[in-house]
Amino acid sequence: MKFASYSVDGQGYYGAVTETGMIPLSPEFPQWPSLRDALVAGGLDTLSDAAAAREVAHGDVSFDMVLPDTTRILCVGVNFPDRNAEYKDGSDLPKHMSLFPRFASGFTGHDQPLVRPPESPQLDYEGEVAIVIGKAGRRIQAADAYGHIAALTICNEGTIRDWVRHAKFNVTQGKNWDNSGAMGPWIVPFTDAAQLDDARIITRVNGEVRQDDVLSRMMFPIREQIAYISTFMTLQPGDIIVTGTPTGAGARFDPPVFLAPGDVVEVEVNTIGTLRNPVKDET
Amino acid sequence: MKFASYSVDGQGYYGAVTETGMIPLSPEFPQWPSLRDALVAGGLDTLSDAAAAREVAHGDVSFDMVLPDTTRILCVGVNFPDRNAEYKDGSDLPKHMSLFPRFASGFTGHDQPLVRPPESPQLDYEGEVAIVIGKAGRRIQAADAYGHIAALTICNEGTIRDWVRHAKFNVTQGKNWDNSGAMGPWIVPFTDAAQLDDARIITRVNGEVRQDDVLSRMMFPIREQIAYISTFMTLQPGDIIVTGTPTGAGARFDPPVFLAPGDVVEVEVNTIGTLRNPVKDET
Repeated sequence: MKFASYSVDGQGYYGAVTETGMIPLSPEFPQWPSLRDALVAGGLDTLSDAAAAREVAHGDVSFDMVLPDTTRILCVGVNFPDRNAEYKDGSDLPKHMSLFPRFASGFTGHDQPLVRPPESPQLDYEGEVAIVIGKAGRRIQAADAYGHIAALTICNEGTIRDWVRHAKFNVTQGKNWDNSGAMGPWIVPFTDAAQLDDARIITRVNGEVRQDDVLSRMMFPIREQIAYISTFMTLQPGDIIVTGTPTGAGARFDPPVFLAPGDVVEVEVNTIGTLRNPVKDET
Repeated sequence: MKFASYSVDGQGYYGAVTETGMIPLSPEFPQWPSLRDALVAGGLDTLSDAAAAREVAHGDVSFDMVLPDTTRILCVGVNFPDRNAEYKDGSDLPKHMSLFPRFASGFTGHDQPLVRPPESPQLDYEGEVAIVIGKAGRRIQAADAYGHIAALTICNEGTIRDWVRHAKFNVTQGKNWDNSGAMGPWIVPFTDAAQLDDARIITRVNGEVRQDDVLSRMMFPIREQIAYISTFMTLQPGDIIVTGTPTGAGARFDPPVFLAPGDVVEVEVNTIGTLRNPVKDET
């Protein structure tokens, strides 16, 4: 089962995704105004049951950021074995994971344009798997971590590269441009460890493979991410962790190859789906 | 007029602060479930009018984080002339401001304890002025920036120092410990530029002055903060910018002097009030 947030004629819905269109669910569950509310309330099973008994009602829809009312998104940086080397700064592998928050406003939905702003020509892609927390916890043990995940989705953690290095510390301003990234197309309930353990990320630009790696090669596996993050903050249902991107972002080519209007970026994760976004200039 | 979020017998309210206690306002404005909702709706004047006609009803209250449902908090780092030198890394003054997000969960309310976790003895204070956006905008001109501010409050941007340097980039994990900082005691509507231009921050630990500086000495003044941040993201009503701390945090002493249980930290801002918090160990 897959659930998406979407719009029809400017009206927002969430529903179940099928081959032929959307089964709208939000009109039936006013107690959960958003898909995030349903997830936080532990309602994904209820949505599944409802969807099984209903018909497709929406064909041509516009996808929204999959959980647009998310209040806490934490991203893990430099998390594949060759990524540290990409920085060419001679530094040792870091002892702990790099983390940075992104606001939901930085992400658009599936099929919506990634926006290149007039201030920079350096819009770049980063294909990643994102997990959505379903059960609260503090100081969660790595062995218990998967039990705290409710659902998975895909993130194109789009970045304005030159703004990442604007300041003495922190990548904040390069990582939070309006509509510079995307999240979706849908969430899938997390029911089987293999959905993460056997996951492979492939990022393509105009059909050309740019990133291709498996989650099992992560330096800081997802179980450890949950354990580490929950050491300092109580994880809450609805929190999203964007778990890290493989080598091969455009900034790492020599010379760098950034996204341009007309490009199409696809992030495919075998256990989730494919998130596709065209690129356009801000108008 | 000052407005606070507070609790009485575990029940949450917001209201107007007076010398003798609180005038509860939330029961009268169910359309605005939180103080943040009232601010976002442009309702601070309406609250002021209502408060003028009502009586104190709550004496002994427990202050909450002043806007606990805030979804976007951006902090400005290294923003006073001597702060860059404190890093002793020989680097030039940065061209752009350093920015990092904090989640609301990292902040408690006035008079509530700052919590030192078992994982680190390095709980530190940072006294700052925080502004609350009242009017949305993208690419706001510095000259227009003050017109986008609805209210002011005080922040103790409490930090777990050794965790700030855990990773290759970003201070995230040292800046987001549950209840490591505080925000409050109240918001004051922003009606006069002098509330910022003439503001002075004094931070005391157990009565001893540790930080003492004026906002007019900021390297990146608040007008420029609003202009720069709104270049990459549309500022929205309810967003908070924590505008930077003067020299004199505990980590900068030689040897460093961190907070310990029993200490009391006060951050006084002449145009806003005094935010006071005791320190305790996590139990």
